[in-house]
Amino acid sequence: MSLNTLEDALHEELCDMLSSETQITKALPKMAKAATNPDLKAAFEEHLEQTEGHVERLNKAFKLLGKKPEEKTCEATKGLLKEGASIIEEKADPQVKDALLIAAAQKVEHYEIASYGTVCTWAEQLGLTELKDLLGETLDEEETTDEKLTALAEGGVNADAE
Amino acid sequence: MSLNTLEDALHEELCDMLSSETQITKALPKMAKAATNPDLKAAFEEHLEQTEGHVERLNKAFKLLGKKPEEKTCEATKGLLKEGASIIEEKADPQVKDALLIAAAQKVEHYEIASYGTVCTWAEQLGLTELKDLLGETLDEEETTDEKLTALAEGGVNADAE
Repeated sequence: MSLNTLEDALHEELCDMLSSETQITKALPKMAKAATNPDLKAAFEEHLEQTEGHVERLNKAFKLLGKKPEEKTCEATKGLLKEGASIIEEKADPQVKDALLIAAAQKVEHYEIASYGTVCTWAEQLGLTELKDLLGETLDEEETTDEKLTALAEGGVNADAE
Repeated sequence: MSLNTLEDALHEELCDMLSSETQITKALPKMAKAATNPDLKAAFEEHLEQTEGHVERLNKAFKLLGKKPEEKTCEATKGLLKEGASIIEEKADPQVKDALLIAAAQKVEHYEIASYGTVCTWAEQLGLTELKDLLGETLDEEETTDEKLTALAEGGVNADAE
């Protein structure tokens, strides 16, 4: 892919995000299964449903841009989830594992917050208001999920792990 | 490593961050070299100096915890930087490349913000105030760098790329 314009960069970033969200839909059920705290388990399950919606929004975004998604593997998400997978397999006290799962999930959330933040700023620069608003909804959901994970950590998971 | 306590998790996370920061010190000079906008180039160079300081703070944190760092490769950072490296090598208009470099750097910043956020919360939970304050300084610097990159993007780089 030759990147001559900001619109090309936006397209490339959307391809990256599609790979990222698709990888995340496969990882979240494993994280939910590995979690012990019922609220954390529920949070992962709820976020899985949201993530499936994020994939749909990305597919709409490609249509708004008038370009098709290209096959791409998001290497960053692959690395982030490799870390998550190693926590799942790790020999750890269940409460400590919950704290580690939250940490891994928040890293993924922050990856997505940075990515959607970039994409929304670029869309605004390009005057693509509908696309910006659409993916802005996903950005809001990622930020809310991150806050919810912080609340779970500070509201009991970290204390249980101690 | 067997993880029985939150202190074990904190130690593991610090090992991860040491690998992460060390990898970043090697990537930043390449990102500075690949940037065209002089302010962006300067921002990467300045952040390299900061990152060297972050490695020093992590080494102090291990001493405060009374544990030695263990050899570990942060897979997430490896993936994030692989993405950065592919941007550097990509055939792109120089202004578009600058916009992409900012995007990649902000993803790394957000990874670090999530990581240091976790570490500071765990240190607080464990009553390790000195360690929390020390790494809180790094967290502040990562957040400031992220804001600076946003300001560079919105203050001209994105418009130049368009």
